Amino acid sequence: MLLSLIYLVAITAEAMTGALSAGRRRMDLFGVVIIASVTALGGGSLRDIVLGHYPLGWVKHPEYLGYTIGAAIVATFVARWMHHLRQAFLWLDALGLVAFTLIGCAIAREAGHAPVIAVIAGMLTGTFGGVLRDVLCNEIPLVFQKELYASVSLLTGAAYLLLLHAGVNESTATLGCLGGGFLLRLLAIRYNWDVPKFVYRDEVH
Amino acid sequence: MLLSLIYLVAITAEAMTGALSAGRRRMDLFGVVIIASVTALGGGSLRDIVLGHYPLGWVKHPEYLGYTIGAAIVATFVARWMHHLRQAFLWLDALGLVAFTLIGCAIAREAGHAPVIAVIAGMLTGTFGGVLRDVLCNEIPLVFQKELYASVSLLTGAAYLLLLHAGVNESTATLGCLGGGFLLRLLAIRYNWDVPKFVYRDEVH
Amino acid sequence: MLLSLIYLVAITAEAMTGALSAGRRRMDLFGVVIIASVTALGGGSLRDIVLGHYPLGWVKHPEYLGYTIGAAIVATFVARWMHHLRQAFLWLDALGLVAFTLIGCAIAREAGHAPVIAVIAGMLTGTFGGVLRDVLCNEIPLVFQKELYASVSLLTGAAYLLLLHAGVNESTATLGCLGGGFLLRLLAIRYNWDVPKFVYRDEVH
Repeated sequence: MLLSLIYLVAITAEAMTGALSAGRRRMDLFGVVIIASVTALGGGSLRDIVLGHYPLGWVKHPEYLGYTIGAAIVATFVARWMHHLRQAFLWLDALGLVAFTLIGCAIAREAGHAPVIAVIAGMLTGTFGGVLRDVLCNEIPLVFQKELYASVSLLTGAAYLLLLHAGVNESTATLGCLGGGFLLRLLAIRYNWDVPKFVYRDEVH
Repeated sequence: MLLSLIYLVAITAEAMTGALSAGRRRMDLFGVVIIASVTALGGGSLRDIVLGHYPLGWVKHPEYLGYTIGAAIVATFVARWMHHLRQAFLWLDALGLVAFTLIGCAIAREAGHAPVIAVIAGMLTGTFGGVLRDVLCNEIPLVFQKELYASVSLLTGAAYLLLLHAGVNESTATLGCLGGGFLLRLLAIRYNWDVPKFVYRDEVH
Repeated sequence: MLLSLIYLVAITAEAMTGALSAGRRRMDLFGVVIIASVTALGGGSLRDIVLGHYPLGWVKHPEYLGYTIGAAIVATFVARWMHHLRQAFLWLDALGLVAFTLIGCAIAREAGHAPVIAVIAGMLTGTFGGVLRDVLCNEIPLVFQKELYASVSLLTGAAYLLLLHAGVNESTATLGCLGGGFLLRLLAIRYNWDVPKFVYRDEVH
């Protein structure tokens, strides 16, 4: 199935963002591999823990760990040419975000959860790997500050559930949302679309 | 039931503290809503995950998310007048701490756990939403540094279980501990009661 | 059983490292006790949550909390002489790392998980208490940067599973790996053995 293939691409891309983030913090190869795996598999793991959906994906399919470990090691070798690959990398990350979201929605929906919970499961899957990466690297999670990232995940998940509710068949809904979400994310990057920021300062005079 | 009503007040108050914390870190509206929801619902979620008590509260009652999202959005609008409301806010937060604690104790107790586990479940519920908020905002959790916060949670939970063990009926124990814990927290704020600090410096000469 | 005894020593040692870490961040006694307990019991708890293995160890045996709380309080008293005890402390911590790892592997294996998952369960048990400690103290997890720490856990777990697979009986495998892992960790400390670091800088010119 297409989504499975994209899932593997997404895991790999997310593992590489994790590895680079770890490299910025001078971690050893071991830390790099762990952060990469948490970035790629953490969102889905958190979703499954929150929904009580056992066993977790990578516990059932340990081969996923092979992909993330491989991707992390490759990232440490190609890192010096990474800025040339920046564009390709942002595209893969966008694809990953949207694919993770749709997978998360589908899993929650099949487990019989309410639509709003399915949307949240999609967002957890799509964005919380990156949140865990940033927490472990002692940074404020980028997801909460960057142009339309979590929002793309929310809109993709909501559109997917609306289409299914409207009677569209699953493959069509998946492909349509995959394309639409991906495009939206690329446009957001290209034109720097932003969700309004909320800036609050304590006025302690 | 009184506790349910207070629970909704508590969720709302905690969501607002989360939103303000996010605003201090310049997060976008999306981040604000997520941090607010994690602050309000994270303690109870962690308790349920630790106890294996599925489904989580907000997964079963998605309408809770409506409250936290609403509270977060309201907080961004009223933030500029927030320092006038500071007192009201501290009271609501104190009420929330005590209510969350009692709810956490009651749930663990009904699930048949030992009293010491019930007290811990109460503390997780009362305080770990704030801990997750601070971790996501890249701060040292306030709970571990502030005047009698976790301690109020501990004492409230312990008193509740002792009263039940002594044969007091549940409504009386709940109301008594709600009042007593709330009062203790207000006194701690008013008189700056502190748990002794432990300060350790590595002596690396 | 030997491993149970070592487990109690390990919990106590890890709780003390947690307490000292909290003391460096000026936490109150309450925070010290909580961080100490999370450090000692957090790795095993995370393993059980990830594997869906309920109830968690300390929920089933609340007396473990007595050890961690006691160790935290003792640590605040002896902290000023701690640098004299530094050597003893590092030894206990090394023993704890290896013992936690073997316990984690054994639990995952008995639950019927694949060998690679058992190795990861061992690493989660051995190292993630320290990761949670560092995240709560707002530091970059040391485990990802320090000389052969997670690696000792990995090698110990892998050796244990290989020995069992080769038909060695469980006590022999446990004792052999306990000794071997402990020695490896001491040698790593003594000679500053390091896993190569991956340093990545964004070249934003």
